[in-house]
Amino acid sequence: MARQSNGVSAISRVVMVLDTFSFEAPFLSLSEISERAGIPMSSAHRIVTELVEHGLLERMPDRSYRVGNRLWEMGSRTPGALGLREIALPFLHAIQSRVRQHTQLLVRSGLDVLVIERLSSRDAVVNASIVGGRIPIQHSSSGIVLLADADDDLAEKVIERGLAPITPSSLATPAQLRDAVASTRRLGYAVSEGWIFEESRGIAVPVRGSQDVVVGTVSVVIPNDHSPVDDLVRLLKLAATGISDALLRSYLPPGHPQARPGGVYRQLVSSSERSMAYFEHLLEQHGPAVHDGHLGPPRHAGAPPAG
Amino acid sequence: MARQSNGVSAISRVVMVLDTFSFEAPFLSLSEISERAGIPMSSAHRIVTELVEHGLLERMPDRSYRVGNRLWEMGSRTPGALGLREIALPFLHAIQSRVRQHTQLLVRSGLDVLVIERLSSRDAVVNASIVGGRIPIQHSSSGIVLLADADDDLAEKVIERGLAPITPSSLATPAQLRDAVASTRRLGYAVSEGWIFEESRGIAVPVRGSQDVVVGTVSVVIPNDHSPVDDLVRLLKLAATGISDALLRSYLPPGHPQARPGGVYRQLVSSSERSMAYFEHLLEQHGPAVHDGHLGPPRHAGAPPAG
Repeated sequence: MARQSNGVSAISRVVMVLDTFSFEAPFLSLSEISERAGIPMSSAHRIVTELVEHGLLERMPDRSYRVGNRLWEMGSRTPGALGLREIALPFLHAIQSRVRQHTQLLVRSGLDVLVIERLSSRDAVVNASIVGGRIPIQHSSSGIVLLADADDDLAEKVIERGLAPITPSSLATPAQLRDAVASTRRLGYAVSEGWIFEESRGIAVPVRGSQDVVVGTVSVVIPNDHSPVDDLVRLLKLAATGISDALLRSYLPPGHPQARPGGVYRQLVSSSERSMAYFEHLLEQHGPAVHDGHLGPPRHAGAPPAG
Repeated sequence: MARQSNGVSAISRVVMVLDTFSFEAPFLSLSEISERAGIPMSSAHRIVTELVEHGLLERMPDRSYRVGNRLWEMGSRTPGALGLREIALPFLHAIQSRVRQHTQLLVRSGLDVLVIERLSSRDAVVNASIVGGRIPIQHSSSGIVLLADADDDLAEKVIERGLAPITPSSLATPAQLRDAVASTRRLGYAVSEGWIFEESRGIAVPVRGSQDVVVGTVSVVIPNDHSPVDDLVRLLKLAATGISDALLRSYLPPGHPQARPGGVYRQLVSSSERSMAYFEHLLEQHGPAVHDGHLGPPRHAGAPPAG
């Protein structure tokens, strides 16, 4: 893209503007956006105006701005986030109906874990997870599972960033972090006891995609009462195997005897069996596509995408 | 933003690139992106490369691209989509545990409805809804509810676009659409019998936000067996009232006696009571913020945003 005079590209400035919005500040005025992004008012005004035209920002009656539904809509086409969530959701519900605390799906993003989904109950234990939010990798049982799957370099980078323990039970020394990773490599799961809140405990297992790569974790957050975790670990491992199998079957070529029904939609959609059978044949039929706001045949009725 | 020589701004080109990805085509090669966006290969390459740097696109081992988790993460800060979903989810679960077919949360986007959430069961009736997908407004009971809340102009625009009936039961004439809207204004709900699939029926009611504005709908999709809908309508209206109340309480100033707990996080988060109590005091405490990947006090620890 064309670089502006100050060497920052147009795309970078858009990202800087969108990144000013956070869970703490979902509504911002133009001057707040300008200040937080470090972009002069006049440029911020031009960028914001155009983002509003495209629906990526929305202007409120009080003249503040919020992130627009169009951005959420574009983000719903992420196989690694919404797609993984769709495929995993029936398994997460199965766990949650048994555990009735918090059931979570997380992926790694740099040195953080990113919360893709969290099911909770009203009276569940305290938990800092926010859907779409991040937690530093060393504070989370899921993070340790992801470190255990990665090269040792990653754990060393986390140590370099600083462990920043939150409670007296948090991992506080490099040795403690390395031990937790080593133990997870042996056992195939991680337990965090009071790392963020003394009264809460996380238990996480890896979810493998095709080629045996770990694509994320499923976890529960439950009371930190030192009760045995064997049954929960078994439940989580069973769900993780189910998700892995569904993922694998979502990426087999449509028509393969083991392929999950749903045709090219399988990687982003999980609905009832009859709905998936409908999606399976939607493109072949060139029937009415009711997605993406289109009447008539789908806009991109072509070959199935490379999986 | 600076206009390119062809008069299309950098932001528009980014939107054109991101919009090439769809539910039918979540993975695309560079040449497919270039062709579908109508942008020359050299420009498409520059844009895609920078989007990958920012994580808004991700490059796959087979050299195809997919929408990146960073875009999903940015989209999770939408009060009108993810936020509405978070606040509504406990009510949607309550409906789904009774109905066990499909329970949905939709909002209007232009002349379409946008699917914010859909809970389904394995053996539920056939349904074309995809989370993040759209349905033309006239094909959906939720669409009729949204038309009923809008000025008559909107229905006329839908008629102008063309009703494009899908089944013999679809709304096929302007009179039928206007009747459905008028009936919904009288009754406070809409029923679609076989409009997309002969065997499926939708029932939708409005969800009101603050100032009595309709912000979306809750609906169920159930078998089209002509069974009475009174009990379901009552259940949906009860849920819609609960969601409205929770929305209203999420936008009262934190500290107001009626305010929903959770402080500035209430508009994007719904978790257990103890978690919301933690969020309530997170900013005051300036305790460790584990969101947005930050250790130490939250980045934007300022005044609560204008709601």
